[in-house]
Amino acid sequence: MAVGDLNDLRAILGNDTAIRAYRDGTLPFPDGTIIARPAWDYAPSQENDKVFGHPQSFVAGAPKEGVRFMVKDSAKYASTGSWGFAQFNDGKPVDAATLRLRACFPCHEPAKQHDFIYTRYAP
Amino acid sequence: MAVGDLNDLRAILGNDTAIRAYRDGTLPFPDGTIIARPAWDYAPSQENDKVFGHPQSFVAGAPKEGVRFMVKDSAKYASTGSWGFAQFNDGKPVDAATLRLRACFPCHEPAKQHDFIYTRYAP
Repeated sequence: MAVGDLNDLRAILGNDTAIRAYRDGTLPFPDGTIIARPAWDYAPSQENDKVFGHPQSFVAGAPKEGVRFMVKDSAKYASTGSWGFAQFNDGKPVDAATLRLRACFPCHEPAKQHDFIYTRYAP
Repeated sequence: MAVGDLNDLRAILGNDTAIRAYRDGTLPFPDGTIIARPAWDYAPSQENDKVFGHPQSFVAGAPKEGVRFMVKDSAKYASTGSWGFAQFNDGKPVDAATLRLRACFPCHEPAKQHDFIYTRYAP
């Protein structure tokens, strides 16, 4: 997957530490933060569009590129902005070498001013 | 708001009864089901697009049209498909007369085959 080649619907979930930091605007995120990203195909809904009368409704289709995680541990992941990266496909972890090829961290580096996290809190 | 005039990002949340019915494919949803719909402006993210190199990223902007609820109670809401409708703006309930004007139920009637619920479960 090239950068900028995304076409999905995604949710960003956090554990209590993550959500507290989001709500309080705490930066950097504290150690123990876990952020998860499920994603799905950005699928048009013919069923919904029939009701609307024209195409406009997009829904979550098939799961896409596993579930990805970022885990904050400043001791363990010092070389990648204190963040560890992981991906699970159908519940099975993708090995670290593959993740390095996919270059999780380089894609997050432009968001360095926001502790490498793109997502903002939606109130 | 006219039918088909939506332009938002929305999440559909359910209590345990709702999620169990979704997962099991149970129709109609049982009494006690509560489904909630927060929504936000479908806002372009200039910050993200700068990283992608072209416009493609949309994020949750300002909250939109409150938080809406559907509550299943076949005794209480027999005249509207066993569903009660509610909306909260900034935590305050919108009165029933206004909701009737907004015509929650008529907009859900085309989804009668799926117990008036448009949203399908995204695994």
